[in-house]
Amino acid sequence: MIQTKYQECIEACNECVVMCNQCAMACLNEENVEHLRKCIQLNLECVAICEASVTSMSLDGKFSKDICTLCAEICDACAEECEKHASMGMDHCKECAEACRKCADACRQMMNAA
Amino acid sequence: MIQTKYQECIEACNECVVMCNQCAMACLNEENVEHLRKCIQLNLECVAICEASVTSMSLDGKFSKDICTLCAEICDACAEECEKHASMGMDHCKECAEACRKCADACRQMMNAA
Amino acid sequence: MIQTKYQECIEACNECVVMCNQCAMACLNEENVEHLRKCIQLNLECVAICEASVTSMSLDGKFSKDICTLCAEICDACAEECEKHASMGMDHCKECAEACRKCADACRQMMNAA
Amino acid sequence: MIQTKYQECIEACNECVVMCNQCAMACLNEENVEHLRKCIQLNLECVAICEASVTSMSLDGKFSKDICTLCAEICDACAEECEKHASMGMDHCKECAEACRKCADACRQMMNAA
Repeated sequence: MIQTKYQECIEACNECVVMCNQCAMACLNEENVEHLRKCIQLNLECVAICEASVTSMSLDGKFSKDICTLCAEICDACAEECEKHASMGMDHCKECAEACRKCADACRQMMNAA
Repeated sequence: MIQTKYQECIEACNECVVMCNQCAMACLNEENVEHLRKCIQLNLECVAICEASVTSMSLDGKFSKDICTLCAEICDACAEECEKHASMGMDHCKECAEACRKCADACRQMMNAA
Repeated sequence: MIQTKYQECIEACNECVVMCNQCAMACLNEENVEHLRKCIQLNLECVAICEASVTSMSLDGKFSKDICTLCAEICDACAEECEKHASMGMDHCKECAEACRKCADACRQMMNAA
Repeated sequence: MIQTKYQECIEACNECVVMCNQCAMACLNEENVEHLRKCIQLNLECVAICEASVTSMSLDGKFSKDICTLCAEICDACAEECEKHASMGMDHCKECAEACRKCADACRQMMNAA
């Protein structure tokens, strides 16, 4: 890959997109899916902002830091929701929460880079 | 369409996506394309955030207002750049600037709605 | 808007994106959401291909007809699934099915245009 | 990551998205950008179909193979165009062509998997 200063953050966002989509589909298969509506909705909103972050960073766009700032906030919210269900034995939520936290961290590191 | 409180803003964002992509392609065909790099880059970044806004609003997501706040800012920046070229006879930039300003306004109206 | 030969199809795809996202969220709120998993999954896949269609058409891309051909197929599949639930009083599925059929038709008209 | 049968193909598509966006921006900075219009346009269309492929696979959607079939075709077309410029010393086109070919191969492997 052409070296980019945003490499790590792009990869974390891409991973987060996949984990959130997978988590949404796995939530739908759970017996108590009615308790997971908010989780699925946040998953899908998180996908949308992570995709925008990847596009902006790979274009080396002027607003990459602003988009990643918002991305970190939404990833944290999605992680927080997923963590509630992670403790109830839902591995997809546990793993999704980890991907979201990692993505939020990568976005914050990217924001603070010179 | 199922009535949504975000109808007008969604339509403005969708229009902006199309106009920005069309403007980017039209810029590429201009003789002085080397002066239009920044415009094309902003066009594409504007597309990315408008798409995220549409997704969030159509999901009735928790972060719709935050995403639209950022969307308004990026649309204004894209409009400002396009307006420089609009006065030089580039109709695609003129029309794109109008779509971006309209989208920014719709995003701000949406943010301020109860 | 700058006149585009794809105007009608772009608008039908954008409408379909919004209706599918709205339908997915409305399905999640239904009591018998466990019967709607396939519907939600198709909704989201339909959104993905409609977005690709809009991008390709607004770029006047070389593969617009190929993407729209596939888009028509996926829209029909989503409509077929939604129609099953439409007859059970789910208005969001009824209206989503209509948007999907309209989008499939617009894609086929676009494919057959000179 | 939750193990997915599509892991390799998802990663190849994500890599292709980044490389195509980077290539488009690098093309814009070339002196002879007027010869690169077709390349930039294909880059952006390739991004659109790769994003749809990633979404479909991460949703484990019914149409993943169909979308990846089309994705392979568009990636090959983008690679073919980039290869023309790769021989003229444009490293971004060379590296983008490689990412596109790798993505096309991954899509074909995915299509042929049981």
